[in-house]
Amino acid sequence: MRHLLDTRTLTYDEALRILDVAEDMSDTQRREVRKLPTLRGKTVVNLFFEDSTRTRISFEAAAKRLSADVINFSAKGSSVSKGESLQDTAQTLQAMGADAVVIRHGASGAPRTLATSGWISAGVVNAGDGTHAHPTQALLDAFTIRKRTHGDASRGRDLEGLRVTIVGDVLHSRVARSNVWLLTTLGAEVTLVAPPTLVPQDVSLWPVRVMYDLDDAIAAAPDALMMLRIQLERMNAAYFPTEREYSRRWGLDARRLASLPAGSIVMHPGPMNRGLEISAEAADSDRSTVLEQVANGVSVRMAVLYLLLAGERAASEREDDR
Amino acid sequence: MRHLLDTRTLTYDEALRILDVAEDMSDTQRREVRKLPTLRGKTVVNLFFEDSTRTRISFEAAAKRLSADVINFSAKGSSVSKGESLQDTAQTLQAMGADAVVIRHGASGAPRTLATSGWISAGVVNAGDGTHAHPTQALLDAFTIRKRTHGDASRGRDLEGLRVTIVGDVLHSRVARSNVWLLTTLGAEVTLVAPPTLVPQDVSLWPVRVMYDLDDAIAAAPDALMMLRIQLERMNAAYFPTEREYSRRWGLDARRLASLPAGSIVMHPGPMNRGLEISAEAADSDRSTVLEQVANGVSVRMAVLYLLLAGERAASEREDDR
Amino acid sequence: MRHLLDTRTLTYDEALRILDVAEDMSDTQRREVRKLPTLRGKTVVNLFFEDSTRTRISFEAAAKRLSADVINFSAKGSSVSKGESLQDTAQTLQAMGADAVVIRHGASGAPRTLATSGWISAGVVNAGDGTHAHPTQALLDAFTIRKRTHGDASRGRDLEGLRVTIVGDVLHSRVARSNVWLLTTLGAEVTLVAPPTLVPQDVSLWPVRVMYDLDDAIAAAPDALMMLRIQLERMNAAYFPTEREYSRRWGLDARRLASLPAGSIVMHPGPMNRGLEISAEAADSDRSTVLEQVANGVSVRMAVLYLLLAGERAASEREDDR
Repeated sequence: MRHLLDTRTLTYDEALRILDVAEDMSDTQRREVRKLPTLRGKTVVNLFFEDSTRTRISFEAAAKRLSADVINFSAKGSSVSKGESLQDTAQTLQAMGADAVVIRHGASGAPRTLATSGWISAGVVNAGDGTHAHPTQALLDAFTIRKRTHGDASRGRDLEGLRVTIVGDVLHSRVARSNVWLLTTLGAEVTLVAPPTLVPQDVSLWPVRVMYDLDDAIAAAPDALMMLRIQLERMNAAYFPTEREYSRRWGLDARRLASLPAGSIVMHPGPMNRGLEISAEAADSDRSTVLEQVANGVSVRMAVLYLLLAGERAASEREDDR
Repeated sequence: MRHLLDTRTLTYDEALRILDVAEDMSDTQRREVRKLPTLRGKTVVNLFFEDSTRTRISFEAAAKRLSADVINFSAKGSSVSKGESLQDTAQTLQAMGADAVVIRHGASGAPRTLATSGWISAGVVNAGDGTHAHPTQALLDAFTIRKRTHGDASRGRDLEGLRVTIVGDVLHSRVARSNVWLLTTLGAEVTLVAPPTLVPQDVSLWPVRVMYDLDDAIAAAPDALMMLRIQLERMNAAYFPTEREYSRRWGLDARRLASLPAGSIVMHPGPMNRGLEISAEAADSDRSTVLEQVANGVSVRMAVLYLLLAGERAASEREDDR
Repeated sequence: MRHLLDTRTLTYDEALRILDVAEDMSDTQRREVRKLPTLRGKTVVNLFFEDSTRTRISFEAAAKRLSADVINFSAKGSSVSKGESLQDTAQTLQAMGADAVVIRHGASGAPRTLATSGWISAGVVNAGDGTHAHPTQALLDAFTIRKRTHGDASRGRDLEGLRVTIVGDVLHSRVARSNVWLLTTLGAEVTLVAPPTLVPQDVSLWPVRVMYDLDDAIAAAPDALMMLRIQLERMNAAYFPTEREYSRRWGLDARRLASLPAGSIVMHPGPMNRGLEISAEAADSDRSTVLEQVANGVSVRMAVLYLLLAGERAASEREDDR
């Protein structure tokens, strides 16, 4: 694997390999000394054009546990804000010896441009671009569903036959998009639930079922219910009901929580708007995997950095050097 | 020791133990290679809701000298500023594998909430909360007084019989509060000197003497005179005299410096307002321990992190795991 | 070497030594594991009073490859912005155990003040001060010219007989100043090309030739053409032509690029204003050393930190300790 740009182009085998390596990483994290020497001497740059402390910290923790050096590059106050191009920024980081660039960018497609332009040879990891993709989030979600379902017998298993329902502002959500492609690749059946104004126009081309009523969707007995975060800054826009209305119709309250089938889990990418898309009862219930998702995020990101920097890629580069 | 939240609840034995371990740390810092492998694989998160470069850097240096990984989390521009709760932030850091959370917060009591809520199992270190407490500052002050008094024979000694006088805006000072409790626990006699409007209302419940005249206090021959930093943003408030008036009556000028008894020291938590609460002569005199306090701050913070992460705590956790 | 403050006072031998050590560092960076244990236990503080992500990252990468601990101190939001003096900041960093302070400051001379005031014993590296100096930039430029000219046979060689032409806003450029002194010390002949309003008044005291016409300068067949970055914020000032006029008369466009003699190189300190002082053709041509300069910057900074912290300096300090 040279880059991780989205989940749409990720093959079944690649996806499963990442999840299995993440299992190994997760195991090491439970031991007394969690630091692995694997990426010693490698430099990982967090290139963040948008603020995202959670995602940045998760990648930073993952890289440091593998003994990589981490350099944080926030675009604010940098020459980027003085009009430097993505090309120049990228080439500069490459020239400084970056082995991997973890990029978050407001523009959909920026990570792909970075990876395919020929500007850099460093591995590129998409940490969220516009409304396009957030592949490590989808991978950690898949990891979490698999772990909750198969436990210690997870290795090598996919999500065949599992029903996952994603609820909320699908239109603007890169988390939803990345999950749709990854989860279906891994065999899950995905249902989207959203207000009609927040369903993407091209959804008929997606391998999903669309519903508009959350209670109907819950009645269909999902194995996992994934609540998307509401971007409050979009609350006044044309396609949005009021906060109260949204919460009443598409929020996961105590009543709906209770009507979920036994064994089904409640997921959220965080940070949660408690009382809006998810109630405190649901957020803190035993069904909630919110914190497991965060923990699994570090394992999944360790796996991705490992596969990019220490796996087949490193081997093929040594070939190239000869 | 599981957490360090304040000095009021710190026992005599605990306080002395921290100071003694800090002596060990201080010794290691004088050698050629100062890096200890003690906390390799541990992750320390600096969770700062208020800016404080000095305190953050001191903790960062302390953690790195013990080979811990350090992740800086500034609340600005993070999901915290988008309304995420302290609970969600804390649980997220915990899930990412934080072993210790060093927290600075504008609200008195936030570190205790964090430590006692059951949200996290990581050790919590209070790096300053509201007007409540700043325990590592008090510990480094106590360490400095002990070191100046007993030198290489400091280990195991307390501050019995020493007179410490704290001068300035006691009302708003967490530094003053933490010092009052720690220094008296260790046997010192503490005197507070402040403008009448800047004495806390409940001061009669504190184990201190209160004076209003700095010259009288100096005439009483303190072993240590601790000048508090004036928060200039409070200068226009009702309880404040003018800057000039403050400096004349409660500032440590050259005349007052000269009238201190032989051997007594001048302390300041920094950063100093030279010419306001302390004159340049006093700040740079041989009596001044300002820079020793900074250096001792790293040793004390190393000791605290060590005791939280590698000491009894770690041992008891291994027990729990069985 | 105790400090690196400018290139004007750098001797021929010192300059050559830095370049040669940088060659060694550059060699280590090509190997699989690039991390050297040389500065383990040392602390390097990046003390940046001006934003400069590129320079900060380059020093950070250099220090980390030598296994030093790096602490980033941005003056924004720190007690510095509350009026703390450079003296207090410096002494605080020293007391915390900083072994080297890399300082960028808006005021010319601030690094020298820091180094010669007696406030600190840490090594001081000037990372750019006002319009005065940017010595590591000049050293990486000299390194780049030498490497392009002599290749693997660079060690021990100087720049005797090479012609370097520097083009642009010389008046405000610390990069130009540092290059003038260093390159001439190493034997190069330096020509400056600038609009008349952007030539320093005291230029007659500099060991350079001054020209006003870029085409004439190119006709003189330089071995290296160094384009300075235009500070767009100065574009409206009295001494500046319009952007269009500047680009037409002093920009390196495709025609001028083509008229350069065979073998001559095009340099730029970055970040480039493509289409202003340099065209995309020039920036991306084979003649361009922009990315080599960035890569060499890490090697040169590794060399400087090594010489300050692990070289003669450390030896002499051990002497002092006895």
